[in-house]
Amino acid sequence: MRSRVTRAAVLLLPLLAAAAGARAEDGYELWLRYRPVSDPALLKSYRAAIAGLAVEGSTPTLQAAREEAVRGLRGLLGTEVPLVTAATRHGLLVAGTPSRSALVAGADVGEDLGRTGREGYVIRSTRVGGKRATVIAANADIGVLYGVFHFLRLVQTHQPIEALSITEAPRARLRVLNHWDNLNRTVERGYAGFSLWDWHKLPDYLDPRYTDYARANASIGINGTVLTNVNANATSLLPEYLAKAAALAGVFRPYGIRVYLTARFSAPIEIGGLKTADPLDPEVAAWWRRKADEIYGVIPDFGGFLVKANSEGQPGPQDYGRTHAEGANILADAVAPHGGVVMWRAFVYSNEVPEDRAKQAYNEFKPLDGKFRPNVLVQVKNGPVDFQPREPFHPLFGAMPKTPLMMEFQVTQEYLGFATHLVYLAPLFEEVLRADTHARGEGSTVAKVIDGTLHGHELTGLAGVANVGTDRNWCGSAFACANWYAFGRLAWNHELTSAGIADEWARMTFTNDASLVRPVTEMMLGSREAAVDYMTPLGLHHLMAEGHHHGPGPWVSEARRADWTSVYYHRADAQGIGFDRTTTGSRAAGQYFPPVADVFGRLDKVPEKYLLWFHHVGWDHRMASGLTLWEELVRRYYGGVEAVRRMRATWKSLEGRVDPERYEQVRAFLAIQEKEARGWRDACVLYFQTFSGKPIPEAYERPEHDLAYYMAVTKRYVPGI
Amino acid sequence: MRSRVTRAAVLLLPLLAAAAGARAEDGYELWLRYRPVSDPALLKSYRAAIAGLAVEGSTPTLQAAREEAVRGLRGLLGTEVPLVTAATRHGLLVAGTPSRSALVAGADVGEDLGRTGREGYVIRSTRVGGKRATVIAANADIGVLYGVFHFLRLVQTHQPIEALSITEAPRARLRVLNHWDNLNRTVERGYAGFSLWDWHKLPDYLDPRYTDYARANASIGINGTVLTNVNANATSLLPEYLAKAAALAGVFRPYGIRVYLTARFSAPIEIGGLKTADPLDPEVAAWWRRKADEIYGVIPDFGGFLVKANSEGQPGPQDYGRTHAEGANILADAVAPHGGVVMWRAFVYSNEVPEDRAKQAYNEFKPLDGKFRPNVLVQVKNGPVDFQPREPFHPLFGAMPKTPLMMEFQVTQEYLGFATHLVYLAPLFEEVLRADTHARGEGSTVAKVIDGTLHGHELTGLAGVANVGTDRNWCGSAFACANWYAFGRLAWNHELTSAGIADEWARMTFTNDASLVRPVTEMMLGSREAAVDYMTPLGLHHLMAEGHHHGPGPWVSEARRADWTSVYYHRADAQGIGFDRTTTGSRAAGQYFPPVADVFGRLDKVPEKYLLWFHHVGWDHRMASGLTLWEELVRRYYGGVEAVRRMRATWKSLEGRVDPERYEQVRAFLAIQEKEARGWRDACVLYFQTFSGKPIPEAYERPEHDLAYYMAVTKRYVPGI
Repeated sequence: MRSRVTRAAVLLLPLLAAAAGARAEDGYELWLRYRPVSDPALLKSYRAAIAGLAVEGSTPTLQAAREEAVRGLRGLLGTEVPLVTAATRHGLLVAGTPSRSALVAGADVGEDLGRTGREGYVIRSTRVGGKRATVIAANADIGVLYGVFHFLRLVQTHQPIEALSITEAPRARLRVLNHWDNLNRTVERGYAGFSLWDWHKLPDYLDPRYTDYARANASIGINGTVLTNVNANATSLLPEYLAKAAALAGVFRPYGIRVYLTARFSAPIEIGGLKTADPLDPEVAAWWRRKADEIYGVIPDFGGFLVKANSEGQPGPQDYGRTHAEGANILADAVAPHGGVVMWRAFVYSNEVPEDRAKQAYNEFKPLDGKFRPNVLVQVKNGPVDFQPREPFHPLFGAMPKTPLMMEFQVTQEYLGFATHLVYLAPLFEEVLRADTHARGEGSTVAKVIDGTLHGHELTGLAGVANVGTDRNWCGSAFACANWYAFGRLAWNHELTSAGIADEWARMTFTNDASLVRPVTEMMLGSREAAVDYMTPLGLHHLMAEGHHHGPGPWVSEARRADWTSVYYHRADAQGIGFDRTTTGSRAAGQYFPPVADVFGRLDKVPEKYLLWFHHVGWDHRMASGLTLWEELVRRYYGGVEAVRRMRATWKSLEGRVDPERYEQVRAFLAIQEKEARGWRDACVLYFQTFSGKPIPEAYERPEHDLAYYMAVTKRYVPGI
Repeated sequence: MRSRVTRAAVLLLPLLAAAAGARAEDGYELWLRYRPVSDPALLKSYRAAIAGLAVEGSTPTLQAAREEAVRGLRGLLGTEVPLVTAATRHGLLVAGTPSRSALVAGADVGEDLGRTGREGYVIRSTRVGGKRATVIAANADIGVLYGVFHFLRLVQTHQPIEALSITEAPRARLRVLNHWDNLNRTVERGYAGFSLWDWHKLPDYLDPRYTDYARANASIGINGTVLTNVNANATSLLPEYLAKAAALAGVFRPYGIRVYLTARFSAPIEIGGLKTADPLDPEVAAWWRRKADEIYGVIPDFGGFLVKANSEGQPGPQDYGRTHAEGANILADAVAPHGGVVMWRAFVYSNEVPEDRAKQAYNEFKPLDGKFRPNVLVQVKNGPVDFQPREPFHPLFGAMPKTPLMMEFQVTQEYLGFATHLVYLAPLFEEVLRADTHARGEGSTVAKVIDGTLHGHELTGLAGVANVGTDRNWCGSAFACANWYAFGRLAWNHELTSAGIADEWARMTFTNDASLVRPVTEMMLGSREAAVDYMTPLGLHHLMAEGHHHGPGPWVSEARRADWTSVYYHRADAQGIGFDRTTTGSRAAGQYFPPVADVFGRLDKVPEKYLLWFHHVGWDHRMASGLTLWEELVRRYYGGVEAVRRMRATWKSLEGRVDPERYEQVRAFLAIQEKEARGWRDACVLYFQTFSGKPIPEAYERPEHDLAYYMAVTKRYVPGI
């Protein structure tokens, strides 16, 4: 009897896992949702191919790899895969490094390992000791962990695993999340609750969630995390806070994730007791060296500093008449003996608004090319303004050949609807990475600038401003997590496609059932363009309400500075609309390399998606569609809302095929998205109509309210400020 | 084959539930943790006694009762109890009201129902249609839900259910949580993350957690929730925020929970456009009436207002030379037509510090007795200062016979170690409720004041300042949840004991295994006295650091006002220590009824636990122990730390018998508690030693640091401010 029950238990394990899942489908598991393979034939073949598991070695990282493999296979195969130490049967999964695992050493994958570097790996269907096996091999432990996650992903997405021959290595060295998290646990531009870091209870209590955060990051290859806000607080460099950061570093270390901190440039004054933070002052340099030594004393693998200086009120070297390079170098010298780096942000614009804001970072940084220490990366936002729904790529890409440029993407949706709008950002990331700078002729893509191949840099990286918080589902909504996922996947390999990433994410997050995967990925892939259309079509930008950036504010004309208004950017008048950045205007187009500058700068060549970014265009200008600019603008705004309505209908058609909790949240959020998209549309169309004086074509539904209504809307206690 | 698997599935259900639990033992389920009954014989008897379930009726509350019964029985019995509509077999569980359920109507419990009122219930082992059944009967739907929770609790705690004859009715009408939650989601004195209310996404998205919050409250009889902070924000009375509150009210309504809001007294100016908030101004009265009408328009069962006025900077009627009664009455008149109440806080003290702060609420309110409208309750903190680890009961209890006095307990541990100290508060609540005011002779306990029996009030209530937040385990730690639980249970029935409540909570939260229940409840029952000893023994009070109230600050002597310092309260000098509140001092003892005043006021009669609250006592004063006051004080401080060390040892002995996640968190928190208890002890003993000039007896370990060290400790970003 006992054995029969045991056997039944084995048969029931998938059911059991499913039941457990049903109980807790709150999104916490993210894409690491190891549900039983639903196709019986496929399950049988997987079970045959993975009948034993050998992950040799006892380092923390190899332990993590083994635990993940056990956890993943238990969930996916609904059975306990026995741990083995010898190749006594067919169907082994062997993972390890040749130096620590005799099984791996005997598997003849050495040649491929020559191409994987420290973090890469090989996954190969081969033979070990004469038995059929799948080998996950790497040069270092972290590669083994990455390889295990890759293999589990194959099973999760129902891929064939009989004839694997995979060689992977990351295309960028630093793949880093930037947390704009404050020490009081608020998160600037965070829409998923509050900061994961419970500073008050650190270092004494280590929330298990820190480990799950590390697992999620490692599963997509993210290898660094900047714990603190770029609007920095020197307190985070005090010994008591370093002890807290060190505790987090201890949790993250087995997962290959280094901790970084933001450095407040005036820290030598604020917590060091010095009278100056002048980077050329020897005492200041000595203070930073001592502070770096102190940090490395408690966090031996500390990654380095991220710095926002002389930007939006932050202190910096210019306070002392020094350059950004002089500022960055003093910190770089402090961390260099320990192997650390400095990520120095190029997001600067002058307090005096002397010049088109889109031009200022280029003007400031290009002349400094070659003046930075080798361990400095200049971190550049994807576009020249500020994470708008659509911007042309930043003109600095390609323009600083002697300096490693690091990409800064915003994963959190500051300007893209917070967590309640379904906006899949991979197409935005992809559009920027694929853009051709022409810096060294055709094919000089932004991706090649970033991955170091264009100008021969070894030190490379991408940063994503994180969208995770204390919300149970991490990112505020299920779909927002796709942006975290996509950032990590693209940082690892910028040649992946938005569609491919969406497909694997949807399979892992929901189900492999094509009748769900297809509509869900369609929603995702169209969503960014929809947001552009209902917020800022045709190259419009920076039309949002002031301060919290939530909702429309094209009429914003008074702010502390002109380039914080909307009218500064859209420049609508009776004649037309758009920012003339050609030779008759701010000449920002001229910052790009010649063929690009020519395309952007000429009204007959500029892609319509960038039209109003670069040109002031008459309302009656004829568009490719044959419509006038006004008609096309209206069509876009209405089309954006229609796209959201289609997403709602698509989602509704999936009711019953997604668990109720996640279904209902997405349903409610899409309703919010439609309401707010309509608000954007109506507010912008009505406002721009006051300039164009033209009617909304009869075919369209009328705005719900008049312009005065939208202008009077007040948003209170908007999160993320 | 199929049927064998199915049968195995039934056998495995407990296992399945256990596995699901093992995966998610993060405390989210609180005490509603329906794990399979572990004793096979008991399980068998329960299954026989509950072979069918009938909860007739389709109102939202009855649906909630049915769902809870199904969920609870499925978990506890590991089987699906069939829903039935007729008494065709023995072993039915029947729940309902006689008016909606023929089965209940036929069960002959009508006589008992005469004593249960609207919220009470009867649980009776009886016969229905000739078959053995357990009947849960109530006059109203909410009583049915309460009864179901009671019955489930019996099974959860492994009680016999064969011969039940239970008649329950709450001892107080309003059993309310006060959330000191701000609209930006910070929680004043909250140590469990941030506010549960996601105002930004309300009313569009209803987090499933709101329902679980309601379930938890209903399970312990809490029937009201004040959503907003007593330090109030008029914004919460704007239409857009009322719509959000209404959405929450909609979720809570089926669970018998009414929503209340805090009313900022100056709201008529701030959001009403009036020039004054003078309660005697007819326009102000009209504004509040219109506002109340508006609220009831969207929340028909709105409970009413909680008001903190003329206290710690809050606006109030005294700004216009009016009394608290005049202020309260204007609000009371506004809500009276709708059946609402006003809970007007007595926690006031003058800005000018004219008088012992412990006396001021009494002086202010006692003369107003009889001047309040019948729908006003004056809400009085348990003690006369401010939620200290120990205070004598508030002298207002018994002193306002014509006014319903509502108890205000603090469930959140502002002065009792935040969420990281294990301090079970039921003994504190119990101590206050059992205290004898002697207002109408011996036996005039505080409980009888509160439950209305002493002075014949129908309108009665208890409020608990909530300790719940976004932390996954609701209260920051497992044990902090016991305080939420205990508050609810005592608010329902103040005759329950701390020990009994701890026992049932531990069984439901962890296990019925006596080898765990016994040590856990021992820890709990000793914990409050331990905290008193390591923080403020022998009647000391208000020794904490300023502002955030975290950690010791007996030396605090400079603050915006004298009664925010510590020296104001302990008055240590070379002669002795303590606040003389006798006839030679502030005469606060004289505010109590004669026999109590006499006890408190005489050095030879005062219980030592209140000694330094009422008396300034010489260092060499001989204590009951035979030790001098100094020696006794030192002994208490050291004893408090020793008690924490014993708790740590006890918990360690339970390793492996609690799931790893909860075990580890409690382990880490107890380590924090010991560290901080030592900090309190060393800081206080060293500081008071500067006055006593006496040594710490040889037998004790030396303080870890010198006094200067403790005085220099700076706490940064302490939560809950």
